[in-house]
Amino acid sequence: MTDAAIRQKRPATHRRTPAGGAPTAAHRPDEVQSADEAHDPRIHVDAVTDLLLGTWGHTRREAREMIKDPAFWRIDGQPMDEHRERVLGQLRLLVEHGGSRRAFPKKYGGHEDNGANLAGFMELVLADPSLQIKSGVQWGLFGSAIHQLGTEKHHDAWLADVIDLRMPGAFAMTEMGHGSDVAAIGTTATYDPETEEFVIHTPFRAATKEFLGNAARHGRAATVFAQLITDGVNYGVHCFFVPIRDADGAMLPGIRSEDDGVKGGLNGIDNGRLAFEHVRIPRFNLLNRYGDVAADGTYSSDIPSPGRRFFTMLGALVQGRVSLDGATTTATALALDIAVTYANQRRQFDSGAGTDEVVLLDYGMHQRRLLPRLAQVYAQFFAGDELLRKYDDVFSGREDTPENREDLETLAAALKPLSTWNALDTVQECREACGGAGFMAENRLVGLHQDLDVYVTFEGDNTVLLQLVGKRLLSDFARQFTGADAAKLAGFAAKQTAGKVFHGAGLRRLGQAVADLGSTARSVELGLRAEHQHELLAGRVEQMVSDIAGRLRPAAKASPAEAAAIFNANQAELIEAARAHGELLQWEAFSDGIAGVEDAGTKHVLTWLRDLFGLSLVEKHLAWYLINGRLSTQRAASVSRYIDRLCLRLRPHAQDLVDAFELAPEHVRAPIALGGEQERQDEARAYYAALAAAGEAPVSEKSLKKK
Amino acid sequence: MTDAAIRQKRPATHRRTPAGGAPTAAHRPDEVQSADEAHDPRIHVDAVTDLLLGTWGHTRREAREMIKDPAFWRIDGQPMDEHRERVLGQLRLLVEHGGSRRAFPKKYGGHEDNGANLAGFMELVLADPSLQIKSGVQWGLFGSAIHQLGTEKHHDAWLADVIDLRMPGAFAMTEMGHGSDVAAIGTTATYDPETEEFVIHTPFRAATKEFLGNAARHGRAATVFAQLITDGVNYGVHCFFVPIRDADGAMLPGIRSEDDGVKGGLNGIDNGRLAFEHVRIPRFNLLNRYGDVAADGTYSSDIPSPGRRFFTMLGALVQGRVSLDGATTTATALALDIAVTYANQRRQFDSGAGTDEVVLLDYGMHQRRLLPRLAQVYAQFFAGDELLRKYDDVFSGREDTPENREDLETLAAALKPLSTWNALDTVQECREACGGAGFMAENRLVGLHQDLDVYVTFEGDNTVLLQLVGKRLLSDFARQFTGADAAKLAGFAAKQTAGKVFHGAGLRRLGQAVADLGSTARSVELGLRAEHQHELLAGRVEQMVSDIAGRLRPAAKASPAEAAAIFNANQAELIEAARAHGELLQWEAFSDGIAGVEDAGTKHVLTWLRDLFGLSLVEKHLAWYLINGRLSTQRAASVSRYIDRLCLRLRPHAQDLVDAFELAPEHVRAPIALGGEQERQDEARAYYAALAAAGEAPVSEKSLKKK
Repeated sequence: MTDAAIRQKRPATHRRTPAGGAPTAAHRPDEVQSADEAHDPRIHVDAVTDLLLGTWGHTRREAREMIKDPAFWRIDGQPMDEHRERVLGQLRLLVEHGGSRRAFPKKYGGHEDNGANLAGFMELVLADPSLQIKSGVQWGLFGSAIHQLGTEKHHDAWLADVIDLRMPGAFAMTEMGHGSDVAAIGTTATYDPETEEFVIHTPFRAATKEFLGNAARHGRAATVFAQLITDGVNYGVHCFFVPIRDADGAMLPGIRSEDDGVKGGLNGIDNGRLAFEHVRIPRFNLLNRYGDVAADGTYSSDIPSPGRRFFTMLGALVQGRVSLDGATTTATALALDIAVTYANQRRQFDSGAGTDEVVLLDYGMHQRRLLPRLAQVYAQFFAGDELLRKYDDVFSGREDTPENREDLETLAAALKPLSTWNALDTVQECREACGGAGFMAENRLVGLHQDLDVYVTFEGDNTVLLQLVGKRLLSDFARQFTGADAAKLAGFAAKQTAGKVFHGAGLRRLGQAVADLGSTARSVELGLRAEHQHELLAGRVEQMVSDIAGRLRPAAKASPAEAAAIFNANQAELIEAARAHGELLQWEAFSDGIAGVEDAGTKHVLTWLRDLFGLSLVEKHLAWYLINGRLSTQRAASVSRYIDRLCLRLRPHAQDLVDAFELAPEHVRAPIALGGEQERQDEARAYYAALAAAGEAPVSEKSLKKK
Repeated sequence: MTDAAIRQKRPATHRRTPAGGAPTAAHRPDEVQSADEAHDPRIHVDAVTDLLLGTWGHTRREAREMIKDPAFWRIDGQPMDEHRERVLGQLRLLVEHGGSRRAFPKKYGGHEDNGANLAGFMELVLADPSLQIKSGVQWGLFGSAIHQLGTEKHHDAWLADVIDLRMPGAFAMTEMGHGSDVAAIGTTATYDPETEEFVIHTPFRAATKEFLGNAARHGRAATVFAQLITDGVNYGVHCFFVPIRDADGAMLPGIRSEDDGVKGGLNGIDNGRLAFEHVRIPRFNLLNRYGDVAADGTYSSDIPSPGRRFFTMLGALVQGRVSLDGATTTATALALDIAVTYANQRRQFDSGAGTDEVVLLDYGMHQRRLLPRLAQVYAQFFAGDELLRKYDDVFSGREDTPENREDLETLAAALKPLSTWNALDTVQECREACGGAGFMAENRLVGLHQDLDVYVTFEGDNTVLLQLVGKRLLSDFARQFTGADAAKLAGFAAKQTAGKVFHGAGLRRLGQAVADLGSTARSVELGLRAEHQHELLAGRVEQMVSDIAGRLRPAAKASPAEAAAIFNANQAELIEAARAHGELLQWEAFSDGIAGVEDAGTKHVLTWLRDLFGLSLVEKHLAWYLINGRLSTQRAASVSRYIDRLCLRLRPHAQDLVDAFELAPEHVRAPIALGGEQERQDEARAYYAALAAAGEAPVSEKSLKKK
């Protein structure tokens, strides 16, 4: 499809469910819906868009308007070298549009508007994820390192050039040998008081900086993380500004760059390696906000604890995770827009009822594949906006306390894994739900999967991030018992035992089973409404954390090796608890988000969608709820049936719900979601009708035999 | 890594677990293993390789030897056009090596060895999946259509040219408007008795043939599926041989080709569309094995039922599914070889016990990610060999009965979805388990995912295939009650009720719970051994099918629309039952496969692996087992613990188990799995040791503060 063709497309007429949205073959005779339940409420699409785009909706719309220009779009199959140059050019365009300055100080032409900054960046994923990530490298990582870890002298020296892309840069943290474990990197920055210089050095191959955007080709400088050594003491990881290429693009002496070559996606970014051979930089170039070295080599820091100092520095760069959470949510919405729109037009097999072929989304299985994922992405929009507000609160300085920073980091560490993993899962399901057409690059889904793939392991490997969340949950849990409050501890222990007996022996379950006897589907649902969903989701987090804490208790008195082994034995479950915590946060954000909705129809439908999200989570962990006596077998069995009912109820609203993402044809671009499928079907139907009308249709062999 | 470098690599010394395979941080103090349990048994790697490569191991090894030649390898990032030409050249090489003739009649230079043919093709996936699939298009689809659907005159006319690639061809079944529903395609082949020709025509855009390999560029002819119309009657879908390009590659009159362009993967194949504008072909070109048209236009067929005739024709092409099942298993094994080998060398974070950094595979979470998937692929190897033998039995003519054909088709329809979906899941998990390195194209995993992606929807969409299996299960179930055996039906109904009461009300569960009280972990395991695993897996299939059949019963007396709605409401669960059936088949094949193993150590380890496979299935469906009263909550809770134990036991054998895939460096090619990681770590360790020995290591800030 050409650029012009995409912009001419007016998809609205073809994107709605034919025949007013009524399902054609999906009724269930045993659970008939009343018409008012299924059809009457409709959402106000525009109002829902406002809800989804959230606090910085204005900025998001501005960014989306900008990227309607085809110059920003990914070209499928473009060779890597050309793609890299194209994306660099897009960054320049972005600068021209003022898209690079929102976060930076006004002194250098910035707006000091952190929330808007990330909101704007997230939307770039619709144009080309390489553009989003290369922008993130330049302004979110390289620029932010100077901004957040440097001081005013550094800002004065470099920020204006960074903002305007006169100085493209790399963010050199990860090494070949160490990714998630940043504290253990091998690069050294040894202070030489004679010359007042730091010597940056890569002492062995594994200490080579790796996977850095802008390193292979475009970077002029890098913010390099290295072990700061002065006077024979290693003060841990600090960040240094290191020029790497001259104005002509030639490597500076002592610096070696290697190209990572082709990757699974994001091939518009020139990822590569950097190695340093005793490269000298002025003392000035230590980004010294959290730690400094005097001319004579004396080290000083406002944060005496090396551990806390390290995590403060890393925490200053949390925006990458916030940004990835939002970008993947937008990308996931795009995938669902494509798959749901197609599923609302594509027909396959007649139903056996002698009618027309059935629209894909009328199949029970297809609803099950797509609608819970639609609910999931709605939850992500609401949770993402909360995260973004938290981020803005802290980084604007309005609520910048250590507690808020810690909360922000934990929230980002909980949400980024869920939204990035869900992106891969949903994009893949959408691709499969579109069959062979989903495998064509022009229909976007395969490209999205390829580009988003690495989001689950970069900016904090998801598994590692969830462990951080899990440890935070454990320490919050332990905090309840500080001060050796014996009564409280005793109460806790009692509760533990009570919990075990209560849940384990099935007393509660039995009660539920009795109450459920003879119940109608409707009354079972009553036990799965909002407050019960919350109780189930929250109760699971609490119990998992408390169970794990109980199992870890012996570690306190064990040898280090034994303690490590005990922790290792509980690692998988701790990660699962962290995931449960993130899911709870998403559910709560979704519920809070619709609490203020006033339009009855909108509220009705979004509540179904929230219920679908909540119950899908319960269904996913159903075995846990059963084993731990939180659901009777009767009620557990009803969860899946309730989900089926919700899918049926939501099916007529599916197109509205993706239309509320407000993605223009220039954002969607996939021909299968822009009306082509419907046009072809209309043409085919007209052909057969004309044939029949002319008496020229061949008779079927079967009808012949009947004669 | 250069070709020469890969071939020089002698990975053996680096691919084994350091320190003899003992886990360093993965012991669980509460479930200590005796040394003889965990360490003493070892598998005989070579003997296991023989087991895995199966009946046609000789042919597989022959194919693997051939593709050690770099001329067969995928080049990452190669532009689409060059990749397409390269793969065409590889097909010629394959012909030179005799790789294209195994399945065909001896009369045309073939070997008439069907099993060997597919076994050889499957291995090509290691070189480049595009090569495997383009070969499949040429010889498995285009060639097979002529071979299986044509008669001797067609074989004489074309097979030799097909085999030698003098005539590349497309297999034109799918249309833009109809994929899985082949019976509804729009292309027509109308017989003209005046000229004794068929007129092939694309009556509307949706009837354009779509996604055809060899259509965009290389095909000279196509086997075109079209509605056969003669004398005003439509006799349904038949296959026709249609020349499409002349010797110079120009399109023949009336035939239009369009290029599908860039796809998510398999870009070495020139997929495209074909449309026909009243194209005339001689009557001769109807592939007439199952249906023929006489010169005067009279239709005849040995199979009077149009439905049975249609399915017989499609069934003759089952080999594609058999082949995909095997190829994805091989590709999945490659992914696990890479990820397990890397996880056995890569270290990250110290354990807190003050020792060296921990090898990834010693983390509980990492074991949980990789080892159950290793068990899964073992199951697939065994099940795949059974499928291949069944295929060979039928197509060799030795056991070619309608029942065996139906069994073969059902088996292929059950296994292909499981192995292709598992390939995507496992390759993705392996990619993530390798972190950023997993995202680099050179490490193979992203390319495998991209290429294998479409395997889940082509050659029968997985969801559609599982529905076919589900319907077969239902009809087998119904067959028990044919002849209106009242006593049997009554017994069945009683059993149903009994089952409901028994399972639903938790009586059995209660008994189990009592028996479990005070049990040790070991005695709980006794209840999860082989025979119980089988009972659980088989019982689930039986009950699901019987439950669905019960719910579908009202459909028999309902209106067509109601019947369709009832079926639709049970669609998702029917598909789940089919999946359960496939899983049971895999488990049984795995168990049968190790039954004959005589070496005690090998048998010991493979039995753990089989148990891990079985229990992972039980864990996946744990909620079902609980809701249906098949497992007590106590026993259900023990399933996950038992899996943890099995992972620990198998951990020291992980490298052996992937080494048994017998993949040479030329098949693996991923630098991270060929010793590079270990070399870098050794170098880093030596650096720090030398520094310490020379007294030049900086002291840590922390140790400074302690002073």
